[in-house]
Amino acid sequence: MQSRHLIDLSDLCVNEWENITRLACDIRANIDSYYGACRGKILATLFYEPSTRTQMSFQTAMLRLGGRIIGFDNPSNSSVAKGESLKDTVRVVSGYSDIIAMRHPVSGSAMAASLYSRVPIINAGDGGHLHPTQTLTDLVTLRNEKGSFSGLCIGLCGDLKNGRTVHSLIKAMSGFPDNRFVLISTPSLAVPLYIKDYLSAAGTPWHEVSNLADAMPLLDVLYMTRIQKERFASEAEYINQRGVFVLDSDKMAMAKKDLIVLHPLPRVDEITVEVDDDKRAKYFEQTEYGLYARMALIMKMLEDSSKQLPTPPPGVQTQCSNPNCITRIEPYVPHIFRKSGDILVCSYCEERTLLD
Amino acid sequence: MQSRHLIDLSDLCVNEWENITRLACDIRANIDSYYGACRGKILATLFYEPSTRTQMSFQTAMLRLGGRIIGFDNPSNSSVAKGESLKDTVRVVSGYSDIIAMRHPVSGSAMAASLYSRVPIINAGDGGHLHPTQTLTDLVTLRNEKGSFSGLCIGLCGDLKNGRTVHSLIKAMSGFPDNRFVLISTPSLAVPLYIKDYLSAAGTPWHEVSNLADAMPLLDVLYMTRIQKERFASEAEYINQRGVFVLDSDKMAMAKKDLIVLHPLPRVDEITVEVDDDKRAKYFEQTEYGLYARMALIMKMLEDSSKQLPTPPPGVQTQCSNPNCITRIEPYVPHIFRKSGDILVCSYCEERTLLD
Amino acid sequence: MQSRHLIDLSDLCVNEWENITRLACDIRANIDSYYGACRGKILATLFYEPSTRTQMSFQTAMLRLGGRIIGFDNPSNSSVAKGESLKDTVRVVSGYSDIIAMRHPVSGSAMAASLYSRVPIINAGDGGHLHPTQTLTDLVTLRNEKGSFSGLCIGLCGDLKNGRTVHSLIKAMSGFPDNRFVLISTPSLAVPLYIKDYLSAAGTPWHEVSNLADAMPLLDVLYMTRIQKERFASEAEYINQRGVFVLDSDKMAMAKKDLIVLHPLPRVDEITVEVDDDKRAKYFEQTEYGLYARMALIMKMLEDSSKQLPTPPPGVQTQCSNPNCITRIEPYVPHIFRKSGDILVCSYCEERTLLD
Repeated sequence: MQSRHLIDLSDLCVNEWENITRLACDIRANIDSYYGACRGKILATLFYEPSTRTQMSFQTAMLRLGGRIIGFDNPSNSSVAKGESLKDTVRVVSGYSDIIAMRHPVSGSAMAASLYSRVPIINAGDGGHLHPTQTLTDLVTLRNEKGSFSGLCIGLCGDLKNGRTVHSLIKAMSGFPDNRFVLISTPSLAVPLYIKDYLSAAGTPWHEVSNLADAMPLLDVLYMTRIQKERFASEAEYINQRGVFVLDSDKMAMAKKDLIVLHPLPRVDEITVEVDDDKRAKYFEQTEYGLYARMALIMKMLEDSSKQLPTPPPGVQTQCSNPNCITRIEPYVPHIFRKSGDILVCSYCEERTLLD
Repeated sequence: MQSRHLIDLSDLCVNEWENITRLACDIRANIDSYYGACRGKILATLFYEPSTRTQMSFQTAMLRLGGRIIGFDNPSNSSVAKGESLKDTVRVVSGYSDIIAMRHPVSGSAMAASLYSRVPIINAGDGGHLHPTQTLTDLVTLRNEKGSFSGLCIGLCGDLKNGRTVHSLIKAMSGFPDNRFVLISTPSLAVPLYIKDYLSAAGTPWHEVSNLADAMPLLDVLYMTRIQKERFASEAEYINQRGVFVLDSDKMAMAKKDLIVLHPLPRVDEITVEVDDDKRAKYFEQTEYGLYARMALIMKMLEDSSKQLPTPPPGVQTQCSNPNCITRIEPYVPHIFRKSGDILVCSYCEERTLLD
Repeated sequence: MQSRHLIDLSDLCVNEWENITRLACDIRANIDSYYGACRGKILATLFYEPSTRTQMSFQTAMLRLGGRIIGFDNPSNSSVAKGESLKDTVRVVSGYSDIIAMRHPVSGSAMAASLYSRVPIINAGDGGHLHPTQTLTDLVTLRNEKGSFSGLCIGLCGDLKNGRTVHSLIKAMSGFPDNRFVLISTPSLAVPLYIKDYLSAAGTPWHEVSNLADAMPLLDVLYMTRIQKERFASEAEYINQRGVFVLDSDKMAMAKKDLIVLHPLPRVDEITVEVDDDKRAKYFEQTEYGLYARMALIMKMLEDSSKQLPTPPPGVQTQCSNPNCITRIEPYVPHIFRKSGDILVCSYCEERTLLD
């Protein structure tokens, strides 16, 4: 693979994640024949914040490949509580294991970890920043359920402002021909400007609607997300708007026969329970595709599995302006930026700082 | 097996649990030859309330069969904490695993889970309601230590009112010929009426005594349980009665030479430490029989292991009157009752409601 | 092996731990060929206080040998929380597993556990008392990095009063010819008198210095430890002394070319991050040697792995005077002492009581 680690989906070239989604499909069809593919290998799951679902998915993936698992999910029980740095933890655990899946509340932490790890790092979520294996899951689901990544009208509904999985999916799918997006949200929870710019630059059509019902007849794919109550602009908006973004049987009745409904789960009440029995509801299948996606990813990443200690690149003096960037929390991490015109973009958290 | 799941011991016909206890005995004698019997299979232990002992027993059982384990024991760390329904958790985890052992504080939760699971569910305790693998453990112990399920004088001592394992054991053993029971307890902690009715209906002799010492000479089996201090009727009764239900060397001296003493563990001080060295004390062996019982159970349940999504039966409008029934906690679960004369019996929690 | 358990390093004769360190070296060179050496065996890690690092090291060791793992790291979730005795827990878990690694906050707990266990016990730390696998780790590191246990000038820096790993290392290395020690600490954190007596009795040269810089040019080995702020005699001493015991590049520049720097980890700030890039810094390698050491130890201890229930020796009436001795916490544990002149030495916690 072009990169040793998976921090962002952009670490994979299109060719690579085509390979991974194809492998995931084959694993699904022949799962038993992959038992033993990672015999003797150890996955460490370092979950600095708990996420049972994601951790179980990684663990199951490794176990179904015949590998073994170690890890933690409770930082207050770990050496971290004694003040150990991310670097030291990663140095030690990468001595024990063959691959690491890491979840951490701070933006850029997975990239920082990769600078000190002797084994491949998979980013299993770094704060609100990136969560590439969820997007990989979504892509494997689309390949299996729609047979193609092109020519799809994709509706995204709910909190489109804060939903990292939504942003990643938009970026990924706008890279394929003839897709278009319907963005279904309140004004205060619309997708950020930079995503709209991204779509326009890619020449991908999109429009916004304020109502799920209006969008239903148009869609080939509906990607639902949860809106947390506290994210509405006001209590009044919450009471007014709430039902508007709930998927129920009535709305399903307006949709195409071959619509598929996705959701990263857990859901709370944004999809009513009756929809579960609709054959077009695919969110539970989606979690299984996530298992196959992670199996394929782990296999590919372990293909070239020699342990080696990286040399971190030199950093610069300039500080990232994002107080929740890993470079602000762990002071030894080198400061690295990409220059883009007048702007410095932090390589860890993508925060953009204007040069004076 | 007649049922795909093990919610209650009644899910097994007598023939089946005879087979399981026989298999457990063979596993005990030849444990190494069973390594690999569940190769490539995954057990998920979903413990919505912690119970290290029971969870470790299930995990060890699966590992000794060559299988793998995933799971959680801390609901506050899991997706549950984000408001996920039991249905969604079970749908997802049954996509990852081949069999599930579940412990949950709410009555009927294991049965509810079985309606949505693609793989077999083992009830590892649902509130104060059922705990069938403990009873299976007790039966395997009796088969091994007494050679027979018949002709036994069985003493049950301690909190007989709240002890679910006690009630299950009484039901199971009253199905075999020539057993009789000595119920040893305070009046306020006596077995519930419906258990006495059960015994009378089965034609099984029983009598109550208020004193462990009086019962000792009669017994072939003594099943001890813990009385929690707060379960005594009053502080005065506690101080008065406490020693009466403690098993010590003096009481052991009154008993038959081939008595066996059982206890579901953990014990606190209802059996003094000196009794541990008596060859008739079998409570530590009992936990090992529990391991073999669970190995046998998992093997049998995985014999027909195709994954399939069940269709929950339709429910009725009537609500169960037990506020701690799973149908009251998870509103989408269909309400199901058995009619018994004028009475509706909830299929989840056995609560009985009189029809008006 | 001469002892079934590893409570203290003295349970191993010199010949045995020579064998273990030699095996650890071979495992390091040929790790894949040891996969399967413990196939079908189960290690239970009973961590009555959390220590993620140590627990992960044991777990990885067993998994790399092809074995399986069960255990807990959170006593509040375990049966212990229901008041279960150490004896009962060990009796039950030794029925499930083939070997136990136990960490416990109370002195002598590992030895107490060994009296009731049907399988070998490895002491993974019992309070401030013993931690033999850390010392084994240090010895394997020395053998690999220095090629010999003799002729070394060994500096020990930091909290030498409370550091159990330091005391064990001194005892072990003073058994080999031509070693000498430089003890680097504040007066209030100097090594205890009995350690100095031990060194003098062994004829091993040693001297104390109050300054890391002065010692640097002399050393072949520098063993760093953390000084917790609250262990300094006063706030003033802390502010004055702190930097004196911090290892940085300037101090490294004064040292021999073939110095090696060790640290039991986690470190906080007693070694600056820049030292990590010095080839003489071996503390991360040390954690890997710890993995091989534990693999070798588990293999050796499982060679004779028949399960057997020990008979605890009879105890005496006399009570140990240490309130944090396991005999004071678990009242059924037999009191055992060695007599040494006028003094009784507790066999669990080494507390010395003068006979009247």
